[in-house]
Amino acid sequence: MAKQLITPRAQNFPQWYQDVLSHAPDLYDESPVTGCITFGSLAAKLWGNIKNYMDSRLRELGVENIMLPTLIPESFFKREKEHVEGFAPEVAVVTHAGGGKLPEPYFIRPTSELLFVDWYTRSGRIQSHRDLPLLVNQWCSVMRWEKRPRAFLRTTEFHWQEGHCLFATQEQCRDFTLKILDLYADLAEKFLAIPVIKGEKAQHERFPGATGTFTIEGMMQDGKALQMGTSHMLSQNFLMGSDGKPMVSFLNQQEEQTVPYYDSWGASTRLLGALFMTHGDDDGIVLPPNVAPVQCAILPIFGSEAGENERVLKAARELAFSLSSSQKIYKVHGRENGFEETSGERTIRIDAREARLGDKTFHQIRMGTPVRIELGARDLAEASCMIKSRIRSRDEAVKCPLSKAVEVVSEMLKKDQDTLFRKALELRKSRTVEPKNYDELKQALEDGMWGLIPWDGTQQTVDKLKTDTSGGTYRCFAFDSEGDAKGMTDPISGKPSAFEKRIYVAKAY
Amino acid sequence: MAKQLITPRAQNFPQWYQDVLSHAPDLYDESPVTGCITFGSLAAKLWGNIKNYMDSRLRELGVENIMLPTLIPESFFKREKEHVEGFAPEVAVVTHAGGGKLPEPYFIRPTSELLFVDWYTRSGRIQSHRDLPLLVNQWCSVMRWEKRPRAFLRTTEFHWQEGHCLFATQEQCRDFTLKILDLYADLAEKFLAIPVIKGEKAQHERFPGATGTFTIEGMMQDGKALQMGTSHMLSQNFLMGSDGKPMVSFLNQQEEQTVPYYDSWGASTRLLGALFMTHGDDDGIVLPPNVAPVQCAILPIFGSEAGENERVLKAARELAFSLSSSQKIYKVHGRENGFEETSGERTIRIDAREARLGDKTFHQIRMGTPVRIELGARDLAEASCMIKSRIRSRDEAVKCPLSKAVEVVSEMLKKDQDTLFRKALELRKSRTVEPKNYDELKQALEDGMWGLIPWDGTQQTVDKLKTDTSGGTYRCFAFDSEGDAKGMTDPISGKPSAFEKRIYVAKAY
Repeated sequence: MAKQLITPRAQNFPQWYQDVLSHAPDLYDESPVTGCITFGSLAAKLWGNIKNYMDSRLRELGVENIMLPTLIPESFFKREKEHVEGFAPEVAVVTHAGGGKLPEPYFIRPTSELLFVDWYTRSGRIQSHRDLPLLVNQWCSVMRWEKRPRAFLRTTEFHWQEGHCLFATQEQCRDFTLKILDLYADLAEKFLAIPVIKGEKAQHERFPGATGTFTIEGMMQDGKALQMGTSHMLSQNFLMGSDGKPMVSFLNQQEEQTVPYYDSWGASTRLLGALFMTHGDDDGIVLPPNVAPVQCAILPIFGSEAGENERVLKAARELAFSLSSSQKIYKVHGRENGFEETSGERTIRIDAREARLGDKTFHQIRMGTPVRIELGARDLAEASCMIKSRIRSRDEAVKCPLSKAVEVVSEMLKKDQDTLFRKALELRKSRTVEPKNYDELKQALEDGMWGLIPWDGTQQTVDKLKTDTSGGTYRCFAFDSEGDAKGMTDPISGKPSAFEKRIYVAKAY
Repeated sequence: MAKQLITPRAQNFPQWYQDVLSHAPDLYDESPVTGCITFGSLAAKLWGNIKNYMDSRLRELGVENIMLPTLIPESFFKREKEHVEGFAPEVAVVTHAGGGKLPEPYFIRPTSELLFVDWYTRSGRIQSHRDLPLLVNQWCSVMRWEKRPRAFLRTTEFHWQEGHCLFATQEQCRDFTLKILDLYADLAEKFLAIPVIKGEKAQHERFPGATGTFTIEGMMQDGKALQMGTSHMLSQNFLMGSDGKPMVSFLNQQEEQTVPYYDSWGASTRLLGALFMTHGDDDGIVLPPNVAPVQCAILPIFGSEAGENERVLKAARELAFSLSSSQKIYKVHGRENGFEETSGERTIRIDAREARLGDKTFHQIRMGTPVRIELGARDLAEASCMIKSRIRSRDEAVKCPLSKAVEVVSEMLKKDQDTLFRKALELRKSRTVEPKNYDELKQALEDGMWGLIPWDGTQQTVDKLKTDTSGGTYRCFAFDSEGDAKGMTDPISGKPSAFEKRIYVAKAY
């Protein structure tokens, strides 16, 4: 590739990330607002696809979307001590509006627990156990003033969904909280091709106000961990007023006035950062077919003979038509600017611009498009085309009869989705160690690996690891952690493990 | 209907509106934030359907979605004098964030022209005429501090889309601005069954900073006008920096550095208010089938015989299955809380709760669901069901063989969509007058009618009408206004018309 301006991963991973994002067309731009980015059309489509996947899964669970205000009265924050302490340093405050000073400031939501609780209290929504569970979610942006912003990973404003549900019993609440964690894991693994560890956060890493926080954690290509979605048991916190009386209660089946159990859960545009850092290569981002807005780009090769370009473009359109599978929902979109898109089971884009094949190829590589099909007059003469995959070796081009193209592309997309997942899983396995002693652990974190260790449960040990390794953190007790850690020795303190499960430690984003 | 708590329209229209909204399940709630509401799941679904309709139409035009920050630096507003004067009294201001006072305040966007212009300047996005047109849009919420809020019609925070496009020539800009107005008119008429007048706003009603504002105006059932969507020619305004130099320019085909032409256009959740006020009746809201989240509700009638309820519910599910048309995309959603939903070409809901038929019926009427199917053991014995339409007379129930139900429901939905549109169109026609003199005009506005009049073009006349009629306003010069108004006499001032077209005047929301 001629236009190599991307720093190789091996040389400097953070710089690679920055380069890759800047070179992907329509992914993002800096903005004049501290710590905020503009999400370009490619990012907006990726987020839209994630939203569609989640919304369809949430709907099956019976969750409905609502839309709450962006602002929260300052006084609401005083109700939940841990919550205000957790978020006060990060919020943006509206003090003036409508041409004057406000009687009470509003916070731009950093998260919306306090507004959801207010909403629960309205219109006699919850009276008896028959009104539960109450399963609601919203898609919105939130704001947390970010000191060290990083595109997609940490931005002052980011987009997310936040689910807020009430249940009659603690057990139902816990079940649902974990059901959502499963949904997040499916989203990551099946849709984004990112293997994740499902687990529970240690107490010091819980969401402010939660009695339990569950997480999915992915390993990026530099071996750092990324928290990709969290689901919180809030239990009866947030539901008590400042007067100590419950703000929300219901008559249970025994006709007793009871406070429900509350959970909340969120996943954000940070997932896009995970996507790029898990699958990207030294040529740019790589998109797994399931989430890619364009799964296959057709690149017509134009020539100089009379009528040649029209013939090639006509063949490209016919091919796009077959690839999008269902005639009924086939449609040509976005004829502007030389691009044509079709949707259907597959989203196909024709780059009809009068540009060199090399330029068109380069554009699609930088976009991370999974499959490209090259089609010129010479191919047409043989009724064939050339099919190339973004994730396979550049030399591995498949010359394919046009009549077989649909089959070959479909198989390629399916296989490449699996390959991306498997490669990422292999990386994580090869970079997870069970260290025999503290030196081994420190070396592992230094080398971009995760350690799975028994923990004595003390904050001193947490602090020691952080200091000794310049930032090593406790990620989660993994659900599938093997063996009984009870009685095993914490490699850092030498004291016995305080828990039955071992915990993952890693440097993290 | 027993539970009649809705004020009749004829008695007090504003109170009717308030009652109808309060009684529609899951439509909205008040919030603790001045002038803001919570959009309930029904409102969120309606807005989602409008978004899907528009996004698919916009995609055909080649418009792509992006997501800009919510905040705008205060200094940006100083660039456009008219714009800042128009919006300064309404904005919410963030003065503190991240635990301290900000060096410069941020405004929460009341609209995003200033941020889009900043975005245009980035990354060498626009260099030559080949980079134009640049067609982008965003879906977001905006905030304008509202002194007299009214659910859906005027809320401090509302949801909308805002398109912001650049063109090489003024003519292309104007063409596209009007193309969007056509799209808005189609959305209103074909999707929401609301007839609209397409026209151009008088200069004093233009968007702050625009050189031309086009609008679609609908007539509500009380005869008041509602502006339902606007498309603005901004020309080269907003694109000049405070130093007088262009912020955005491109090389045109003659290789001259040129400033592009800019348009912006928006439609908001106000459309939901239009929907309710156009079609609602004294029993509640009425949803046109095309936009209704649930087009048909199946209401199983439960009894006391052994196995009866299971048989009825099984038949209801089979019917839902047939109605949703395509087996492939049939899916049962949201089994929680006794409701089951299916999607497909038609969205069907089964109210499987063990409640009385009357209660289930009442619930669906208040929801505005277009069609209900009642199905009990007695119907099953005859292999039939009872089909009822929300918009037809309550007595007009269709007893229908189960084998014909799909056909009957499909026809009913199609016909009812047309009927709603025709009824609204007839209302507008019957309530639009061409007054012979000022007294007739004043009486017409008093009676909830629109006047179509020649206008002398002066602000004095505008002010006089407003005073004399307690709020009569100039809506738009209609594109299809008949005849040449030039030389005709303004009925208010007695002076000659300053324009070729007559203008609509009306009281308005």
